[in-house]
Amino acid sequence: MSALVEFSMFPTEATQSKSAFVARVLDIVDKSGLPYQLTPMGTIIEGETVAEVMNVINQAYEELQTDCGRVYSSIKIDWRKGAMGRLGNKVNAVEEKLGRKLNS
Amino acid sequence: MSALVEFSMFPTEATQSKSAFVARVLDIVDKSGLPYQLTPMGTIIEGETVAEVMNVINQAYEELQTDCGRVYSSIKIDWRKGAMGRLGNKVNAVEEKLGRKLNS
Amino acid sequence: MSALVEFSMFPTEATQSKSAFVARVLDIVDKSGLPYQLTPMGTIIEGETVAEVMNVINQAYEELQTDCGRVYSSIKIDWRKGAMGRLGNKVNAVEEKLGRKLNS
Amino acid sequence: MSALVEFSMFPTEATQSKSAFVARVLDIVDKSGLPYQLTPMGTIIEGETVAEVMNVINQAYEELQTDCGRVYSSIKIDWRKGAMGRLGNKVNAVEEKLGRKLNS
Repeated sequence: MSALVEFSMFPTEATQSKSAFVARVLDIVDKSGLPYQLTPMGTIIEGETVAEVMNVINQAYEELQTDCGRVYSSIKIDWRKGAMGRLGNKVNAVEEKLGRKLNS
Repeated sequence: MSALVEFSMFPTEATQSKSAFVARVLDIVDKSGLPYQLTPMGTIIEGETVAEVMNVINQAYEELQTDCGRVYSSIKIDWRKGAMGRLGNKVNAVEEKLGRKLNS
Repeated sequence: MSALVEFSMFPTEATQSKSAFVARVLDIVDKSGLPYQLTPMGTIIEGETVAEVMNVINQAYEELQTDCGRVYSSIKIDWRKGAMGRLGNKVNAVEEKLGRKLNS
Repeated sequence: MSALVEFSMFPTEATQSKSAFVARVLDIVDKSGLPYQLTPMGTIIEGETVAEVMNVINQAYEELQTDCGRVYSSIKIDWRKGAMGRLGNKVNAVEEKLGRKLNS
């Protein structure tokens, strides 16, 4: 089984720049040991189960709650029966169908 | 503290109609005992913590995984310090600012 | 054809409370003449085409850009061949499958 | 001004594999001439205005509507006053705050 989870999380107050908060979240993601990819609009984590990835997101929430009054997040989950390793393979599958390389 | 969580969850194969699957998810939500509201585009649950609501979503995933090969979901979380009871209050706050009633 | 579009839109700076901004967006939605429903986590609009609803969202963006430096939004689109009128029918279909009334 | 838009779009019927449909959408994105990045969970496009990117998404919808009965999409928009070029800069800003390189 493979759960691909894309999420973004940020406080909705105080300051326009969110990168310091994103860095604290990414530190937790990085230390979870799960495969992940940081993109300009969020972070994609792959786990064997949905619960495994949700656990990392819960920890990230707890981290930001220590000094934020309001935190927003948006999460997409693509769960599928079958093998792990989709973090790299999904882009390849699209490029193969299209017959050429894309910006990725 | 209050975590308002809006989510939709459905299999992305086999059939256009998703209502039978949504019904099974809603049965789990309903039995969780947490306050919730079903909308035409998803379900909104309120919990004291993010983890409490995530737990219900994990259960819903496990339910659909029994007979689905691929399940997609989209989740938005609006966490805030302060009192529970936002399921009804947020719409009121907007109508108050606007000075008139809206379709809700 | 029917495009059901759920969206939320808010500035990510300055203040925790977003209801004054949401009210300005809702004013535009309300005046568009399209059927809609305000929920605690967003607004659901129904149009015949995706472009018709996107046009309303573009107008809302232009409104908030007059005095905001950064605006975030999250949008879900469920487009389907077939008749309009899904704003009310989708909840009914789920309740019918489940055989009982839900909080909606 | 810069509108960073992340979106995913796929039919919710018939087949588990979505890559052939994603390829058709990516072909439209690629030909739009706007800077973009394909990720395992969606596509990120940068435009000067929200409307400019929405226009590409509308075209992608029209393409899939030719042979799909139901199409779902999820969109996130991060609009900001200031210069374009955020497709590469956002990841750098997070890594700088964290003081080390991340998987991106």
